[in-house]
Amino acid sequence: MIIDIHGHYTTEPAALHAFRDKQLAALADPGRKPSPDLAIGDEELVKSVQPQLKLQRDRGSDLTIFSPRASGMGHHVGNEAIGHVWSRLSNDLIHRVCTLLPDNFAAVGQLPQFPGAPIDNCIPELERIVRECGFVGVNLNPDPSGGYWKSPPLTDRYWYPIYEKLVELEVPAMIHVTGSCNPAVHFTGAHYINGDTTAFMQLLQGDLFRDFPALKFVIPHGGGAVPFHWGRYRGIAQDMKKPLLTEHLLKNVFFDTCVYHLPGMECMAKVIPVDNILFASELLGAVKGIDPETGHHYDDTRRYIDQLKSLTDADRQKIYEGNARRVYPRLDAQLRARGKAGKAQAVA
Amino acid sequence: MIIDIHGHYTTEPAALHAFRDKQLAALADPGRKPSPDLAIGDEELVKSVQPQLKLQRDRGSDLTIFSPRASGMGHHVGNEAIGHVWSRLSNDLIHRVCTLLPDNFAAVGQLPQFPGAPIDNCIPELERIVRECGFVGVNLNPDPSGGYWKSPPLTDRYWYPIYEKLVELEVPAMIHVTGSCNPAVHFTGAHYINGDTTAFMQLLQGDLFRDFPALKFVIPHGGGAVPFHWGRYRGIAQDMKKPLLTEHLLKNVFFDTCVYHLPGMECMAKVIPVDNILFASELLGAVKGIDPETGHHYDDTRRYIDQLKSLTDADRQKIYEGNARRVYPRLDAQLRARGKAGKAQAVA
Repeated sequence: MIIDIHGHYTTEPAALHAFRDKQLAALADPGRKPSPDLAIGDEELVKSVQPQLKLQRDRGSDLTIFSPRASGMGHHVGNEAIGHVWSRLSNDLIHRVCTLLPDNFAAVGQLPQFPGAPIDNCIPELERIVRECGFVGVNLNPDPSGGYWKSPPLTDRYWYPIYEKLVELEVPAMIHVTGSCNPAVHFTGAHYINGDTTAFMQLLQGDLFRDFPALKFVIPHGGGAVPFHWGRYRGIAQDMKKPLLTEHLLKNVFFDTCVYHLPGMECMAKVIPVDNILFASELLGAVKGIDPETGHHYDDTRRYIDQLKSLTDADRQKIYEGNARRVYPRLDAQLRARGKAGKAQAVA
Repeated sequence: MIIDIHGHYTTEPAALHAFRDKQLAALADPGRKPSPDLAIGDEELVKSVQPQLKLQRDRGSDLTIFSPRASGMGHHVGNEAIGHVWSRLSNDLIHRVCTLLPDNFAAVGQLPQFPGAPIDNCIPELERIVRECGFVGVNLNPDPSGGYWKSPPLTDRYWYPIYEKLVELEVPAMIHVTGSCNPAVHFTGAHYINGDTTAFMQLLQGDLFRDFPALKFVIPHGGGAVPFHWGRYRGIAQDMKKPLLTEHLLKNVFFDTCVYHLPGMECMAKVIPVDNILFASELLGAVKGIDPETGHHYDDTRRYIDQLKSLTDADRQKIYEGNARRVYPRLDAQLRARGKAGKAQAVA
């Protein structure tokens, strides 16, 4: 099967946006506080993800790991209390979609992070979505200030409580920023990519995985600038007397394939070990158009992977399925419980 | 000839560092204010750049475009007044090195930018270094706050006075941040690369070159994440109804080759037109070591370019010399005045 590990719910029913409007309006006028009952029926939910289901059929993928709209997480917006309500509501919608369409979607959640607030405050929601709702992973924002980078690096003990819980629950974190409130930093064109690059460099500088050998991070968008500057990172690690990156980071850090052209994907495949690459498209909407140079959608990333001559069939099986089952063990367990065991070598 | 367009004076005499220590100490204790006379002799200056000269000989490059240490610019440090003194002093040292060794070095300056200060305040120093000292370009920092991105984007009218002067003087700007004072953002491993990526995206979002068709920017470090995500940027431009990037940006925006491994350089050469690529190594010291996979220094970027099978001899001549003469017309004029005309097609 083909698992796309990076999809966002960017086709939410209008009622969710209306709720958020009212919620933020209530910061200025408490009388506008909305009811948490969105009154969205199951039929409407299923209808809302038809675009994603069509893309799965058109492009031949089977299951999408599905999380709330990344820019919608908005950790820097409002205050911590409304962030908790917003996260819970957003996660509940994801949970319902994945429950209604379990063959097509597996759930990843957002956390109620807030700039300056203790990360411990996110643990109850993490426990809830994993233990009660069957989520297989979570998005962790390294910069909840939304483009100003006011949090300590990911290697700081500030983050340790959430890492302890991630390890205990056996779920990976995708390191994913939310929207940017910094007018100098565009969200999908700069902040997302910078977030990936910055997080990787934070991990390189530290020794986090000595303390958390079982912790797993997925860095999206092909790892930001990292594969393109792989020589720079290997060299900086060497100058810092760190172990080889394969030892220092690659037992714990994985990259997705949200790279929207063949030359970028070729670069990635040359430097990042196959075991660390997970298929993903970032559906739906980060880049919407058709590439005039190929006649295909930019975000149809499977096409680039299928064109990589260096990969064996076994390599492709890892990228499309095996690595995802290994990095998201709760997904593997869910699939097995549904009679989809996967190839033996993929989950070894 | 082979022109390396991105070198920094990272082997400064100790007297320069001692000056800076005293200058910053004087913020707390005015009695420590140093004399601006560094008492560095010509012999000491020439000796200080022997490592660079050796690398030129070893690697077969002829001339390095030489600017002050990037992280040393420190626009966010202290106050605007000391920044003016510091910039002038740093530029004067570059000027002396380039005057002593005109066959080996051409000068690029730093500006006395300060967070929140009008960019107009940098114009006198820009005029001085170009008109009086023969500098051929200047570094422009898109984030003088040092990792917090507090300035408006490069397309904002805030920056227009400096662009008018750059066009008038016919000098390009290299878009180069300085050190990071943000503990979440490592300087060479994150801030530099993010700075490149962010600046490119700012330019993509705007229409700056409609107002300044003759303005030229060099984005260093291979353009940050841009070539790796070239499909993403083409797609975002398309979604924003911008012209093709070749039309929208590539008449004015150039990339250097500070990419420290072959797969990255291959990716760049596949997507960035040859006319937009300028040879550079970022000597000396961003990455110091020898790559165990090749047995050569990571930053010996000429080796990667020489291995690119897709390039013709004419392409290489552009990357090594012709494009630099075109983007830095004052350098070309200086070389011609010294009897080094270059190939006709390279400067057409």
